[in-house]
Amino acid sequence: MNWVRKDLLGTRELSREEILLLLDTADSFRDVSRRDIKKVPTLRGKTVITLFYEPSTRTRVSFEIAAKRLSADTINISTGSSSVAKGETLKDTGRNLESMRPDVIVIRHSMPGAPHMLAHILDSAIINAGDGSHEHPTQALLDLFTMREKKETLDGLKVAIVGDIVHSRVARSNIFALKKFDTEVTCCAPPTMLPPRLEELGVKVAHRLEEAVAGKDVIMMLRIQKERGGTASIPSIREYSSLYCLQEAHLKEARKNVIIMHPGPLNRGTEISDEVADGPYSVILNQVENGVAVRMAVLYLLTGGEG
Amino acid sequence: MNWVRKDLLGTRELSREEILLLLDTADSFRDVSRRDIKKVPTLRGKTVITLFYEPSTRTRVSFEIAAKRLSADTINISTGSSSVAKGETLKDTGRNLESMRPDVIVIRHSMPGAPHMLAHILDSAIINAGDGSHEHPTQALLDLFTMREKKETLDGLKVAIVGDIVHSRVARSNIFALKKFDTEVTCCAPPTMLPPRLEELGVKVAHRLEEAVAGKDVIMMLRIQKERGGTASIPSIREYSSLYCLQEAHLKEARKNVIIMHPGPLNRGTEISDEVADGPYSVILNQVENGVAVRMAVLYLLTGGEG
Amino acid sequence: MNWVRKDLLGTRELSREEILLLLDTADSFRDVSRRDIKKVPTLRGKTVITLFYEPSTRTRVSFEIAAKRLSADTINISTGSSSVAKGETLKDTGRNLESMRPDVIVIRHSMPGAPHMLAHILDSAIINAGDGSHEHPTQALLDLFTMREKKETLDGLKVAIVGDIVHSRVARSNIFALKKFDTEVTCCAPPTMLPPRLEELGVKVAHRLEEAVAGKDVIMMLRIQKERGGTASIPSIREYSSLYCLQEAHLKEARKNVIIMHPGPLNRGTEISDEVADGPYSVILNQVENGVAVRMAVLYLLTGGEG
Repeated sequence: MNWVRKDLLGTRELSREEILLLLDTADSFRDVSRRDIKKVPTLRGKTVITLFYEPSTRTRVSFEIAAKRLSADTINISTGSSSVAKGETLKDTGRNLESMRPDVIVIRHSMPGAPHMLAHILDSAIINAGDGSHEHPTQALLDLFTMREKKETLDGLKVAIVGDIVHSRVARSNIFALKKFDTEVTCCAPPTMLPPRLEELGVKVAHRLEEAVAGKDVIMMLRIQKERGGTASIPSIREYSSLYCLQEAHLKEARKNVIIMHPGPLNRGTEISDEVADGPYSVILNQVENGVAVRMAVLYLLTGGEG
Repeated sequence: MNWVRKDLLGTRELSREEILLLLDTADSFRDVSRRDIKKVPTLRGKTVITLFYEPSTRTRVSFEIAAKRLSADTINISTGSSSVAKGETLKDTGRNLESMRPDVIVIRHSMPGAPHMLAHILDSAIINAGDGSHEHPTQALLDLFTMREKKETLDGLKVAIVGDIVHSRVARSNIFALKKFDTEVTCCAPPTMLPPRLEELGVKVAHRLEEAVAGKDVIMMLRIQKERGGTASIPSIREYSSLYCLQEAHLKEARKNVIIMHPGPLNRGTEISDEVADGPYSVILNQVENGVAVRMAVLYLLTGGEG
Repeated sequence: MNWVRKDLLGTRELSREEILLLLDTADSFRDVSRRDIKKVPTLRGKTVITLFYEPSTRTRVSFEIAAKRLSADTINISTGSSSVAKGETLKDTGRNLESMRPDVIVIRHSMPGAPHMLAHILDSAIINAGDGSHEHPTQALLDLFTMREKKETLDGLKVAIVGDIVHSRVARSNIFALKKFDTEVTCCAPPTMLPPRLEELGVKVAHRLEEAVAGKDVIMMLRIQKERGGTASIPSIREYSSLYCLQEAHLKEARKNVIIMHPGPLNRGTEISDEVADGPYSVILNQVENGVAVRMAVLYLLTGGEG
């Protein structure tokens, strides 16, 4: 099977086969970062632009490291220094950048659909690195990569996603991706943090954390997205934590070798306790490491690499 | 003919032959960005510093891409993160950077003459990427490159430059450069946006847009420089636009294959209408593409490359 | 002798032999920056992250140039754009970055001990690029390199360090390093700018500038650290300058070929006069140049290079 998409905008439109192709390709890039010389010439002479309209360290750095280890040239643009301040439209910024002939533009934007708009008008490959509360496909892919790495296969997994579901692009991209496999996904949050008609996505809903984690292979805790209105949905952080902060005691009801995931950055004590975040079931740092491999795979496939 | 200048500070001092050497060299670099592997080893082991005291995406990115495609190492410094905040003088910053042995320093500064001062005290090649309302030579060079590309030759061209002339380093650098050729340049703006004694530069003045564009081969629309006091020169943006915003109807009076230029970023609806900006005569995106080639040429010649 | 430390956190713990190994290695890298092709493949495929929680140009740029001339990939993170804004702890940021498998993390932080904490929990090599008022070892190393370059040997040197000693990580790292050699170090400052029990570090104290510089081989002027509370220690900048700003007249009492040093950025007229800063005894720009060589040496040795 070969990759045929020009862009990576979301997981919703990906087939099971496309996801597996991405994960398998990431597998083959994983070792590059573990070598003494962490560099391959694969994307030599390619130009990758990161265009971030929201502050981010981890995602930008992950893409930048992935691109550099593939020998691509990277150009960083972040809001503070951008001519967006001069009132230019996103369309014009995109067309402008395209005229300098980049191969890939990685965009993060607070507006859902911003990457799709760029993808529609530009020939460059567009990677959605997060668009508002909509999608964040490379996060979901690295999450699936980590689940598969730890559990051998995705089919049959029971996954709980807990927290600020309604504001979470991570949750959405994970749900879309996981439902391409034979998985059972349970979302858990206070009612104000659950989107209406969530069941239509094929997921279960639990309101109590104890109920959500019972029998699960994977527990994915979400970050309270203070910067995207997360705290407006709950009476207080303290009350939220008393009900939804994952503690070691909760894990007893989960499957024996449950893995605990979190997209980071952690609000320790809010959505996850220290003992869980740093405990033996946590695969949070594996997720970060796998992120580089997954982004190398995405950059590789979008620039014409073969699966 | 060989390039002999240490710096590129403005177009005023350039000869016709020097400009042609720059354009011809840019021609030879143009294809690099259109290849699959967009990189040549020409400036391997050279260090290019971009030192931007004013926010900018497009110019900084254009220089950075140009340098990287020539295999130079690039270092970005922008005001926000600079020790200028610590009260160091520009002279000291310059001498400091020079001690780290860069080959080229690309500087943008709000103070006219800032690049000239650095050029005077430093051995590094200095490129003026915009100094206040004074000069922006690489912009003018990419504009001339684009005019020559579309019109075959510069001699004989009739060019209108419309907008906030008095605040525009783009207009000044273009006028200086175009007057080295057998061109007719007409400036058009409200009286408050025209510098005194403009005719001494060898240009004509028109107050009405209709009159300015009549019979022209090239119409260059300028950006209302809100960040450099542009709006203080006019009663209101709305009134300005009613008189000076280029509409499709205006083009009827121009030459048959007129080209429409704009240095960007566009204020759509203020100085240029959507139909013109996105229409068949617009070469705005060609300008951006050519900017990379022109900057590659400038970097190449200033670091000792042969014409 | 081989380098065995994982990190470079301070000069306090370094032996005389380790310092000499660093300086000798820097010697061998010095010429790289003076060549036409300023690049060696030594660190190809290594990843160096600069993580700056305080604004800085010169130190970040010096490390970045050093890394690039060794062919390492560099990733810049500065506070403004970092997810520290999202409330992540430094530990989590460090673990996160480590998961992306950098070889070296260069950190500047306002909290003394921050680099030590990272060094303790991470496998990556950590370089302290300044932690509060504590240490700044690469600055001291480049200072010693410059002293040795100009004076042939460190043993026997008489050094005055003048200014805001109590807030100065530069002073501390220099004192620790110089006392590994047979040097006489005299600190000079108003009483409020001297730490208590300074003599326990083996240095002399002088309160008058005239007294401090008499008979010295090296005079190191410190910067008034306005951003770290420096001005709170003195009644006024004006009074400080009248007593402690180094003037040409002061140099008469120093040794014949005294050298004048300053870590930069200069507050001209506050701690150092123009005539001294730009005069024949100043080695301030040599310090900057040597900084690149010293940082190349540190990066090289910490990534496994042999002395």
